[in-house]
Amino acid sequence: MALIVHKYGGTSLGDLNKIRHVAQRVAAAKDQGDDVAVVVSAMAGETDRLIRLAYEINPDPPPREVDMLASTGEQVSAALLAMALNAMGYPAISFTGGQVGMLTIGVHRKAKIREISAERVFEKLRDGMIVIITGFQGVDIHGNITTLGRGGSDTSAVAIAAVLKADLCEIYTDVDGVYTADPRIVPTARKLDTISHDEMLEMATLGAKVLQSRSVEFAKKYDVPLKVRSTFTNDPGTLIAEETGHMEQTTIKGVTLLRDQARVNVLDLPNVPGIAAKIFKAIADEHVNVDMIVLTENNYGGTDISFTLGIGDLKAAHETTQRICSDVSAKGVTVEEDVAKISVVGIGMQSQPGVAADVFDALGSNGINIEMISTSEIKISCLISSKDADHAMRVIHDRFKLGEPQVATEEVT
Amino acid sequence: MALIVHKYGGTSLGDLNKIRHVAQRVAAAKDQGDDVAVVVSAMAGETDRLIRLAYEINPDPPPREVDMLASTGEQVSAALLAMALNAMGYPAISFTGGQVGMLTIGVHRKAKIREISAERVFEKLRDGMIVIITGFQGVDIHGNITTLGRGGSDTSAVAIAAVLKADLCEIYTDVDGVYTADPRIVPTARKLDTISHDEMLEMATLGAKVLQSRSVEFAKKYDVPLKVRSTFTNDPGTLIAEETGHMEQTTIKGVTLLRDQARVNVLDLPNVPGIAAKIFKAIADEHVNVDMIVLTENNYGGTDISFTLGIGDLKAAHETTQRICSDVSAKGVTVEEDVAKISVVGIGMQSQPGVAADVFDALGSNGINIEMISTSEIKISCLISSKDADHAMRVIHDRFKLGEPQVATEEVT
Repeated sequence: MALIVHKYGGTSLGDLNKIRHVAQRVAAAKDQGDDVAVVVSAMAGETDRLIRLAYEINPDPPPREVDMLASTGEQVSAALLAMALNAMGYPAISFTGGQVGMLTIGVHRKAKIREISAERVFEKLRDGMIVIITGFQGVDIHGNITTLGRGGSDTSAVAIAAVLKADLCEIYTDVDGVYTADPRIVPTARKLDTISHDEMLEMATLGAKVLQSRSVEFAKKYDVPLKVRSTFTNDPGTLIAEETGHMEQTTIKGVTLLRDQARVNVLDLPNVPGIAAKIFKAIADEHVNVDMIVLTENNYGGTDISFTLGIGDLKAAHETTQRICSDVSAKGVTVEEDVAKISVVGIGMQSQPGVAADVFDALGSNGINIEMISTSEIKISCLISSKDADHAMRVIHDRFKLGEPQVATEEVT
Repeated sequence: MALIVHKYGGTSLGDLNKIRHVAQRVAAAKDQGDDVAVVVSAMAGETDRLIRLAYEINPDPPPREVDMLASTGEQVSAALLAMALNAMGYPAISFTGGQVGMLTIGVHRKAKIREISAERVFEKLRDGMIVIITGFQGVDIHGNITTLGRGGSDTSAVAIAAVLKADLCEIYTDVDGVYTADPRIVPTARKLDTISHDEMLEMATLGAKVLQSRSVEFAKKYDVPLKVRSTFTNDPGTLIAEETGHMEQTTIKGVTLLRDQARVNVLDLPNVPGIAAKIFKAIADEHVNVDMIVLTENNYGGTDISFTLGIGDLKAAHETTQRICSDVSAKGVTVEEDVAKISVVGIGMQSQPGVAADVFDALGSNGINIEMISTSEIKISCLISSKDADHAMRVIHDRFKLGEPQVATEEVT
């Protein structure tokens, strides 16, 4: 007998019929003799509806009150799922984050889980009940309701699986696993049977939207076996687990794309120490996250600094760099909006020097210009023009033959 | 500086504009220098919507889960009202019943308030904030969310006013006070400036829907001055307070009507002790509340027992009495559906013997047949045919000249 945590997202709980369907999946797991705890998101669209009400009544709503409001979404879906299971003859009980002792720290709307005292969950599981827990939310030390930020339900599920020492945490969603690339862009994209935590982390951060990256970090840290599966099919999904020897033969796991990027160039800085720090300190003060950074000497003996960021932060970054332009003795600032970041991800990539060359060649020979490059142990990212993005995904996917069946690595433990 | 509790019902909070309007009323009270705590119901229709979802997914939903579900309604309106006040520059904070230590006992969906540890409310009021509290709900000793049953928000408000030792509890609703009769039936009905707790209790129980009777009991027990006012006008409303000398001159406070009543007649019972107890024990076992009871000797030396009850309980009562018919040696059972109960309410009525006679004469001389009568210290109730109900209200209202201005009794303290 195992202890399994299921997590269902909003699209899986979109209406009463879908909730009934989820109840059947949960019941089927229970029928196999396992203990089951379920973490739920709000019904599809409900969180958006509530947040819209908040901003309609107050353009700058107090975050504490937004959490009070938004947290009702999961409470509704948790109670309805408990009712659906009870109607099918499966004793089930729902709990809010606060009721299962999900204690958070940090600010409202972006709280972080500090600890979970899952005694009540254990107690009810021992009683043979299915326990349903609202995702995305907890309480602070004063009992105020907090939320973990968008997508936080994945993190809730992994955190609860960690505390329960669950044998498996299954994230149910509307896709049947992690793909080598977005199948809407690359028709030959193939579902992966397994992927390592680190690879998944890169994939999640780089634009594969199947899992929130915080949840993958959590799973890695607490060694929680994680699976991404479809609510609507019986596909076994993708297992995210520690890498094993088997994995080394597979160099590239997938290609991801991050759209809506922008680039800022600070031109012709004097080549003296501390200049870069000054620029990025000023930007950090505006709470802007910078992604790729390139520093190059230009033809005039000075230095150009370019960096990328999400388009939403461009205005703040542009204004800040313009403001400090004379402070840092720069000649000027230019910005570029229509750029995207394409990345290839895979463990062992660094020990295979041909990979980077293959990426650059695949892009170059197809007329796609590379504006910036950044690499890590398990990924290579290239900044390219937005108009080339889809084409770039397909040519890289083809180059590494990601659509072809690989050696099975399902036996990872 | 006084401490005032406001309570707003669902129709007062029907949409964002109405919530803004409520925020203005609350802000106006704060502007007068008073401390203000606000108890809110769910937005109009929201509780019904949630309960409908519950019964759609489970025809017999676990009451604990229904409470989990339904309690989100008030949480939403409380958070939105807090946001609206903050948008107007009035610091406000919302709390769930659980967060203000509203501890309940008893069963889910019909819980009773045991105690409130209102420390956090006091703390925030001292900070100059407006405190908003979800009505209708609390938590049990295990932290499970409970609800007080329909209309429980009035009771929440009075209980919180009692704990805060508030100077006044104002119940805001869609009518501007307590009337001598339902103005939709009796056009000459007059709004009362004051009414005693006991009179209001009878009025509430007997069909005047402005206040939940439990809240009036609470106000009487803890001596909370209570006011019923309109959210949409500036009418001073009706004050519900302990009776004073002034009140004695006013005999009749109002006429109320309870429709959807039914009558059960158990015919020709042997005149032996214990028979009535047997019948009502059997009915009580079916959780049926019986209202008026009449026991008469019939012409054949036996006894007839008639009683009234809400039409919703008729089926259960009919089946039960038929089942035990031979046990109690009755000749048979008849039922009657189209009956209503009309009542006149007023303190001091019993010391004025002419009142009952006037009621009977008003009905009789207008051709309205009285089927049963029951009296208490402050009311006379008559069971009549449903078709006569509206007419009966008007003739009694006229007979006691309830539409004419009475001696002012506003100075009650």
